Amino acid sequence: MWKMRRVTGIDGRAAAGYGADMPRYALLVEYDGGPFAGWQRQADQPSVQGAIEAALGKLEKREHTIAAAGRTDAGVHARGQVAHCDMEKVWDPFRLGEALNFHLKPEPVAIRACAAVADDWHARFSAMERRYLFRVLVRRAPSTLEKGQVWRVMNPLSLEAMREGAAHLIGLHDFTTFRSTMCQAASPVKTLDECRIEQVETGAGTEYHFHLRARSFLHNQVRSIVGTLERVGAGSWAASDVKAALEAADRAACGPVCPPDGLYLMGVGYPDDPFAG
Amino acid sequence: MWKMRRVTGIDGRAAAGYGADMPRYALLVEYDGGPFAGWQRQADQPSVQGAIEAALGKLEKREHTIAAAGRTDAGVHARGQVAHCDMEKVWDPFRLGEALNFHLKPEPVAIRACAAVADDWHARFSAMERRYLFRVLVRRAPSTLEKGQVWRVMNPLSLEAMREGAAHLIGLHDFTTFRSTMCQAASPVKTLDECRIEQVETGAGTEYHFHLRARSFLHNQVRSIVGTLERVGAGSWAASDVKAALEAADRAACGPVCPPDGLYLMGVGYPDDPFAG
Repeated sequence: MWKMRRVTGIDGRAAAGYGADMPRYALLVEYDGGPFAGWQRQADQPSVQGAIEAALGKLEKREHTIAAAGRTDAGVHARGQVAHCDMEKVWDPFRLGEALNFHLKPEPVAIRACAAVADDWHARFSAMERRYLFRVLVRRAPSTLEKGQVWRVMNPLSLEAMREGAAHLIGLHDFTTFRSTMCQAASPVKTLDECRIEQVETGAGTEYHFHLRARSFLHNQVRSIVGTLERVGAGSWAASDVKAALEAADRAACGPVCPPDGLYLMGVGYPDDPFAG
Repeated sequence: MWKMRRVTGIDGRAAAGYGADMPRYALLVEYDGGPFAGWQRQADQPSVQGAIEAALGKLEKREHTIAAAGRTDAGVHARGQVAHCDMEKVWDPFRLGEALNFHLKPEPVAIRACAAVADDWHARFSAMERRYLFRVLVRRAPSTLEKGQVWRVMNPLSLEAMREGAAHLIGLHDFTTFRSTMCQAASPVKTLDECRIEQVETGAGTEYHFHLRARSFLHNQVRSIVGTLERVGAGSWAASDVKAALEAADRAACGPVCPPDGLYLMGVGYPDDPFAG
């Protein structure tokens, strides 16, 4: 970690108001993941983190390192990603958000809100809940306006069967089956608090929206679950096969992992919402 | 018009079933207008018509000329544009749609349905109604996932005031004020059957959806109306100013014409829906 010198900011409020070293700000971030290799900064590929850090570098000329609640994969979108940054200067949060949006252009990344937070507040480690949405569009014709923003499948899906399959996954389980072999989490045991599926008629046709909520997720967990439930909806799997796959605790028992296009990090929960009010 | 020789098709059904000369097919077309200079074919710029005609040229190697219900402008989208094409061969409509979608890739244009129609059926001249949607997104942050698909405004809008303004436009009027000076329609007198505004909460924020319906529209009529009503919603115009602007029958009395990004041709009405059943 790049060590910062103590700076009190233009009006001296830093030391008094926002922590011992540097004022910290939480950022509520939306992005189209399409053009990015993912959230995480990479040496030779565009990333969302890199885009925001570059915009911060226009405001305070130095290297910046920001942290986020969820390190989304390539092609995954966000409506409510949360990150935090440490600044030298004390910024009015509204103006900091506006300035970042100005410098983020023309990247499809936007700061929807910005708030001053305590210096021990951490976008990732303070988070108590992540909420994801996965959109599946059922139709023959290729998607146009939703290209890259939904997973299009051509076979009809049974909502009832998918709901029945999803019910087996709720609660505390060993999710080894639904976890990438690349996953670095210490334990495959997680509690899935919600896996709700709704059918939505949109301008594009019939969509199924999968709403998943947990304290934290394993790598590729949402895409592994949705890809498996899609097979249940299509009739290739029985709903009870989901239970068997889960109990196998074996990655090879998973259904096909679906593409990132339909996945959105919708929101992150904290003990106190930094953006409230 | 390129004169076609009489062809009966592979199984001789052309003459018997679909008209004297060539079998005609109606196409229900969806597109993202962003990359196109508009519907209409142009010598040196990409157009939706050109993309579909090029795909038709892969199926029957010759020049094709198709007609559409609405010649949408650059950047305007469609969920339910309707066009028709004349083929030499008799095609199964489902297979014709599938083959076109195959050859349209990777253009953001999709054939949602295809139907055989009588040879005097015309996508434009048989149409009795056009339905448009205009999406306005109200928020400070730039749009990311909806980029090019909504008109983003930063000021809050009054739904009540916009509805009051819109009420003045319903019915039979001289719409000279709300018509581009480039408009080639014979008369500025049109009947606006519907101008309904709804407030919708989406993942991106608060949107206002303007639903307009008429037998036909003048050039730039929807964008002129929505741009004017937005000024009413923002409080810059009184709702009664819309009435005065309409009665002036003067293009200079119009509010600002809004950008094409939020405009969608949603559907076209015919005496008999060619895509029904």
